[in-house]
Amino acid sequence: MMNNPKLNCDYQKLDTPFLLVDKPVLRSNLARLSKEIEGMGAELRPHFKTLKSLDAAPYLLAENVSPVTVSTLKEAEALACEGYTNIIYAVGISGDKLPRVYQLLSMGVDLKVLLDSKEQAQVPNQYSEDNRCAIPALIEIDCDGHRGGIDPNSPELLELAELLHRGSAQFKGVLTHAGESYRCFDETSLRAAAENEVKAALNAANRLRDAGLPCEIVSIGSTPTAHRYQNLQGITEVRAGVYGLFDLVMAGIGVCNLNDIAARVVTTVIGHNKEKGWVFIDAGWMALSSDRGTAEQPKDCGYGLLTDSTGCLLDKLQVTAVNQEHGIVSAVDGGSINFDALPIGSRLQILPNHACATASMHSHYHVFDKQNNSYEIWTRIQGW
Amino acid sequence: MMNNPKLNCDYQKLDTPFLLVDKPVLRSNLARLSKEIEGMGAELRPHFKTLKSLDAAPYLLAENVSPVTVSTLKEAEALACEGYTNIIYAVGISGDKLPRVYQLLSMGVDLKVLLDSKEQAQVPNQYSEDNRCAIPALIEIDCDGHRGGIDPNSPELLELAELLHRGSAQFKGVLTHAGESYRCFDETSLRAAAENEVKAALNAANRLRDAGLPCEIVSIGSTPTAHRYQNLQGITEVRAGVYGLFDLVMAGIGVCNLNDIAARVVTTVIGHNKEKGWVFIDAGWMALSSDRGTAEQPKDCGYGLLTDSTGCLLDKLQVTAVNQEHGIVSAVDGGSINFDALPIGSRLQILPNHACATASMHSHYHVFDKQNNSYEIWTRIQGW
Repeated sequence: MMNNPKLNCDYQKLDTPFLLVDKPVLRSNLARLSKEIEGMGAELRPHFKTLKSLDAAPYLLAENVSPVTVSTLKEAEALACEGYTNIIYAVGISGDKLPRVYQLLSMGVDLKVLLDSKEQAQVPNQYSEDNRCAIPALIEIDCDGHRGGIDPNSPELLELAELLHRGSAQFKGVLTHAGESYRCFDETSLRAAAENEVKAALNAANRLRDAGLPCEIVSIGSTPTAHRYQNLQGITEVRAGVYGLFDLVMAGIGVCNLNDIAARVVTTVIGHNKEKGWVFIDAGWMALSSDRGTAEQPKDCGYGLLTDSTGCLLDKLQVTAVNQEHGIVSAVDGGSINFDALPIGSRLQILPNHACATASMHSHYHVFDKQNNSYEIWTRIQGW
Repeated sequence: MMNNPKLNCDYQKLDTPFLLVDKPVLRSNLARLSKEIEGMGAELRPHFKTLKSLDAAPYLLAENVSPVTVSTLKEAEALACEGYTNIIYAVGISGDKLPRVYQLLSMGVDLKVLLDSKEQAQVPNQYSEDNRCAIPALIEIDCDGHRGGIDPNSPELLELAELLHRGSAQFKGVLTHAGESYRCFDETSLRAAAENEVKAALNAANRLRDAGLPCEIVSIGSTPTAHRYQNLQGITEVRAGVYGLFDLVMAGIGVCNLNDIAARVVTTVIGHNKEKGWVFIDAGWMALSSDRGTAEQPKDCGYGLLTDSTGCLLDKLQVTAVNQEHGIVSAVDGGSINFDALPIGSRLQILPNHACATASMHSHYHVFDKQNNSYEIWTRIQGW
């Protein structure tokens, strides 16, 4: 790890584009949700997919046994090597990935896989039998029709749990994700999505227990709903990923303010087209990603909103187009560009639409803590 | 470099998702354009931004002095360390990048920078004076209103060239890019875009020479126009990037066939939602990128078209949605999904919308040559 809290760095001198992480803002975001969830008696199981950095792990996970969610086995392997042992791999499992799962189990890692069909349940059952192990598996519940999972009221839920429970794999519980909460833009619908997520998971867990099946884990979560639960009785854990960095999508949903966004792409002005009202910057999709997550929101932020180098929002400006290494900044909503205020060579910061996507474009993050005058370089885990 | 042509690999056994490069297809694409451009008396200056791998460099560049275009100084530095010396950095220059440019010039690399305003020209002029060097600079010409550059007929062209020529920097010539050719969907408009690009560059070069200014380099290029030039007299070089891998955007424009696409994301089926007609795969935007380049084309390919593991196109199927590590495959155009033919654990290949964007999501490429029974892992240059 390249952490060096004593490193001095004037971030004005770093070559652009780069991803800046404001550490006090990150820590405050992490602490806020953690306190909320723990205050309601559940555990927070942060999703590692957003930051994906072992340098960030100590801020997300208090202890080696703290629960964590991953989106790739590569993340699980990296975390395991650092001593973290309580992991859910929250992407549907296929047989080709089981040797790596087995390897982690053999190292003593409590790694749980996810599935949602009888066909799929045969895979860890058979593998466990063949390899004399017991792969821990969760059943994915569909709470809102967003993506995968099975209806918590379906007969399949019981059949599937039976199959795992009586088979060689280990049935560990249920998991759901209110993916549709990303389309909630007011308090009422956000709270309804949160309540619905809780209800679906509890419903599944109760049906399983009524049928005499164990249901140790009752896992729910999405960043929008995670900030709106009223009661977590019966829920063992909450998963959330983007809540550490936050982004424009989350600000659009109303679960954070622009000041809570901890990740920004720092860029340099590299050209003007005064006739067209364009300012060219050295951050294109290679630095920002092509994510257009705010396109479906009431306020479309283009490819990102802008601040000056002190972090002050530049009103009515957006990144309106991106090529690989070029971004185009234009005025929107009747605004206009003051070219003299944005000379070639000047620096801007871009608030990202989707922090997971923007962070994924960077192999390293530049992490600043002005309060403690520290600078660190965090390395991102890459690949699968 | 990790090249090992003797390495044996059954690509069915590699963990998904991964980027597969079909080397014979790549080589054939590279040879086709190279032959065409050289046959017309110009040089091809491949854009390194698509493949961005030193392992690929020998296939793009015949010799150490072969011309190459880069989108980042990181690429230029990596190429310089391998001995490549003839480089254009084709993104507008800003002062903060000049120390790295100077460093490369000091190593003996002939690195040229790009600019399009008098304000910007002061930067290399002043730097050259202060550091007793002569930074070689090209002027960007706007041939179609796509992005940056100046009008080839404008008085600014001559003023800007004068400024560089009489200043401490070195004026090297003109460069243009027919970015609007990406919106051409028939032969007539493609040829017109190609002709217009040539004309704009020649016009600028002739005006400069008529004014007694040198114009050594006359550089044009975009993958669509590069395949449609009729006459390159007076043009010194052609730049193109995506022509090596090709993609669905280029197939939509008509400069390649689906069989010419050399890069594919290999993925595994990880779930079914029969009610909704969805097949879940383990390739989301993390493996594919969020690029929706075909959205504005007559045939929208979603997030990619699909083939079976032998490369045979699966008609009327598309990747219709992506999350970080999940893709959703659905039927389009009145087709339907045969779930039995796509069981959990089976493998598919995804033809990418935009090869530059998809390749950028992978730190390594898995390069297969069935003809020569070889397998190589190519490493991508990352960062800026």
